[in-house]
Amino acid sequence: MNTDAKAGHGTLEVPRLIGIKRDGGELTADELAALITGYLDDEVTDAQIAALLMAGVIRGFTDAEAVALTEVLLASGERVDLSGLSGPTVDKHSTGGVGDTTTLITVPLLAAVGCQVAKLSGRGLGHTGGTLDKLEAIPGFSTRLSIEAFRSQVERLGLAVAAASEQLVPADRRLYALRDVTGTVADPSLIAASVMSKKLAGGAEHLVLDVKAGSGAFLTDVDDAVRLAERCVAIGRAHGRKTSALVTRMSQPLGPAVGNALEVAAAVEVLRGERAGALVELSVELAATGLADTGVGADEAVRRSRRALEDGSGLERLAALVTAQGGDPRVVDAPRQVLPSAPVVVEWRPAVDGVVTGFGARRLGELAGVLGAGRQHPDDVIDPAVGLEVEVGIGDAVGPDGPVAVRVHAGDDAAARRVIAELDAVVAVADGPADPGPLVHHRIGADVDDAGRSTSG
Amino acid sequence: MNTDAKAGHGTLEVPRLIGIKRDGGELTADELAALITGYLDDEVTDAQIAALLMAGVIRGFTDAEAVALTEVLLASGERVDLSGLSGPTVDKHSTGGVGDTTTLITVPLLAAVGCQVAKLSGRGLGHTGGTLDKLEAIPGFSTRLSIEAFRSQVERLGLAVAAASEQLVPADRRLYALRDVTGTVADPSLIAASVMSKKLAGGAEHLVLDVKAGSGAFLTDVDDAVRLAERCVAIGRAHGRKTSALVTRMSQPLGPAVGNALEVAAAVEVLRGERAGALVELSVELAATGLADTGVGADEAVRRSRRALEDGSGLERLAALVTAQGGDPRVVDAPRQVLPSAPVVVEWRPAVDGVVTGFGARRLGELAGVLGAGRQHPDDVIDPAVGLEVEVGIGDAVGPDGPVAVRVHAGDDAAARRVIAELDAVVAVADGPADPGPLVHHRIGADVDDAGRSTSG
Repeated sequence: MNTDAKAGHGTLEVPRLIGIKRDGGELTADELAALITGYLDDEVTDAQIAALLMAGVIRGFTDAEAVALTEVLLASGERVDLSGLSGPTVDKHSTGGVGDTTTLITVPLLAAVGCQVAKLSGRGLGHTGGTLDKLEAIPGFSTRLSIEAFRSQVERLGLAVAAASEQLVPADRRLYALRDVTGTVADPSLIAASVMSKKLAGGAEHLVLDVKAGSGAFLTDVDDAVRLAERCVAIGRAHGRKTSALVTRMSQPLGPAVGNALEVAAAVEVLRGERAGALVELSVELAATGLADTGVGADEAVRRSRRALEDGSGLERLAALVTAQGGDPRVVDAPRQVLPSAPVVVEWRPAVDGVVTGFGARRLGELAGVLGAGRQHPDDVIDPAVGLEVEVGIGDAVGPDGPVAVRVHAGDDAAARRVIAELDAVVAVADGPADPGPLVHHRIGADVDDAGRSTSG
Repeated sequence: MNTDAKAGHGTLEVPRLIGIKRDGGELTADELAALITGYLDDEVTDAQIAALLMAGVIRGFTDAEAVALTEVLLASGERVDLSGLSGPTVDKHSTGGVGDTTTLITVPLLAAVGCQVAKLSGRGLGHTGGTLDKLEAIPGFSTRLSIEAFRSQVERLGLAVAAASEQLVPADRRLYALRDVTGTVADPSLIAASVMSKKLAGGAEHLVLDVKAGSGAFLTDVDDAVRLAERCVAIGRAHGRKTSALVTRMSQPLGPAVGNALEVAAAVEVLRGERAGALVELSVELAATGLADTGVGADEAVRRSRRALEDGSGLERLAALVTAQGGDPRVVDAPRQVLPSAPVVVEWRPAVDGVVTGFGARRLGELAGVLGAGRQHPDDVIDPAVGLEVEVGIGDAVGPDGPVAVRVHAGDDAAARRVIAELDAVVAVADGPADPGPLVHHRIGADVDDAGRSTSG
């Protein structure tokens, strides 16, 4: 930041700077830094930043502006220093989806193949779940670790999952609260700056991003998700981190479970080799992408990641994680006996014969919330036992005499009935055939062409 | 407003409504009313309204949205009831320019031709002057009238000019303060809603608007000014008021004076028949436009307005106004002896021979402010005596041995020198010829074609 921008703070011509963005221009890094720093210092108002953000959302922020915004968010708080670890350090992030249990699988796989995974996570909000809530469904599991305990566990075991400190990127928290009420959430650059400032503050050298697109994601459009992924990768690279992103399908629940204990059980079953499907494939892909970023060839990275699944070394790392953080280690042997279970379980099948042609995936996530699995507000209390098991995917034959399509795990009959009543509208059934489309739409980062976008997937 | 919107207030989905505007959609009158009413009730935040306004400024508000916004501003305060007057009642408004002394001439002319002019005015801010400041340069003149005194003076004399009450459209004041700091001032719909809510609250049946375009106006572009004028006329009509607008040239000072006492002197001299030029022409045009709106034929309206200038009946109405509101009536006989005068007067001529090819008209207005004629903040104290007399216009031959180009009236030598030093940059001189272009760009309202825009001017 140059000293003029600093010196000009008190008399910062805020409306003029807002006007540049309003008229489709580009703000310099110094100008953006002055505005956001002024905001954090209460010299620039909520209203001024809201106007700026809205102008940027409509006109579009440039790559350089997204990098600058990330930089100022990052500078607002503490950073985790992982440089003393023997490494390589890897972090993984998902933009949020429904039935997205990959972290519970990918993190142990990465540890099993020799990476150190220092994962700072958040809680679920809205229709998406959060890794902390899922792990805390394991009796005794604690996500409150001091920075020092966190670092030493990563060095010792190769993995730790902890709650992000309030001191990590406080500006993002404040900016997100503003965006939430002003209709400026769903912008690729603002999301990228928010995600990447937290990932960069987390300190890992290698970043793997899972950017969701579809009816169950914050961004429903694949092109928007690609823009977000490209922006995240550009920001990561501008900060000297090896960053890769997969743009993946979120038009149906990724895994068979939506709800905290149910997702832990599904993850354990995957690591035990008892399940196949999209959740398994994507978890392995994400682990392989992280491993490849550390210098291992792409094919070899996939082989090793898959082997860690098959030989039980991934499951063994999950057991080590659970034990180290106070959880009941028997969860990896008999998850459904150890984890809390709901008193009411109701099976649902569609009333007509056909194939599943689509999901209101976001609504499915919200229905898990209706059952008590998620939060509408950050201080809502959740029920770890409840949720949905979705046993069918797009293209599967279903009907009143067919297999169970959805299993509703509820706290009481009334809650179960409320959710069951909506399922006809949420699971679309028609004459087939139907195809869910590719699981991975795009790969951005590691093995990219000059346009920054891979042609695979 | 329907009751659903009212009832939904507490749980108003503000971000969703903002999102409609962000994505280029149109808000209903009920939705806009709910947002702005919620704002005035402190249920919707500054930040939310700032985001909404920015979205509207970039995407554009529709005619219907501008009408709805005006309606909710109007509903926020008191309204002046002029219905008991014998009428016809006419009000006149300028969007603000430099050397724009028309109100002091047009209002007496309208009164002289039989209209009743109930003019509520504001003070100058930024580079433009305000009618109240100008009139208060006349020793003794008071602009503080009770509503009843105001009405009875209009009925008795045909004209009154008073300060707008704080209770008139308080929402506009609050919204303007927000727009001022968030880069959302210069939008045709927002300006139109602000102007028209105050004009409608003022109660006159007939409204004449002078919308300025050029380097000395808030809108520099003629097309933008036309949009503003059209929007104002549409709003006026939607509220059942006969509304006409002229879009006029503000690429150079309109009249020969910029500064309060200097402008009063110029206005008196115009009404005494001692001056010709653009100020005279536009003042007569505006009076004729108002008179025509009351049902008089256009040509006859021009004839009568011009006659009121030539036969001294306009001057006589100004004298009646000054006397009624406590001012020294001799101002109409010997203005420059009655009005305060500045201790320092410095003449300026450009250093090179040529013709005037353009003005930094806005900067000229600001330089009058530097001398003390205007305000940067609403509570600044002004000096009525100081200002600039600009004796030349675009196309006039000037030079070091030519006529005086500008006369600086200052409080002291230092202030005069500061302004003189800038005049070379503000008055552009080059090889000629140069033409100021038409005085009236467009006429909108009274005699319009189907597109709502006249082809004259």
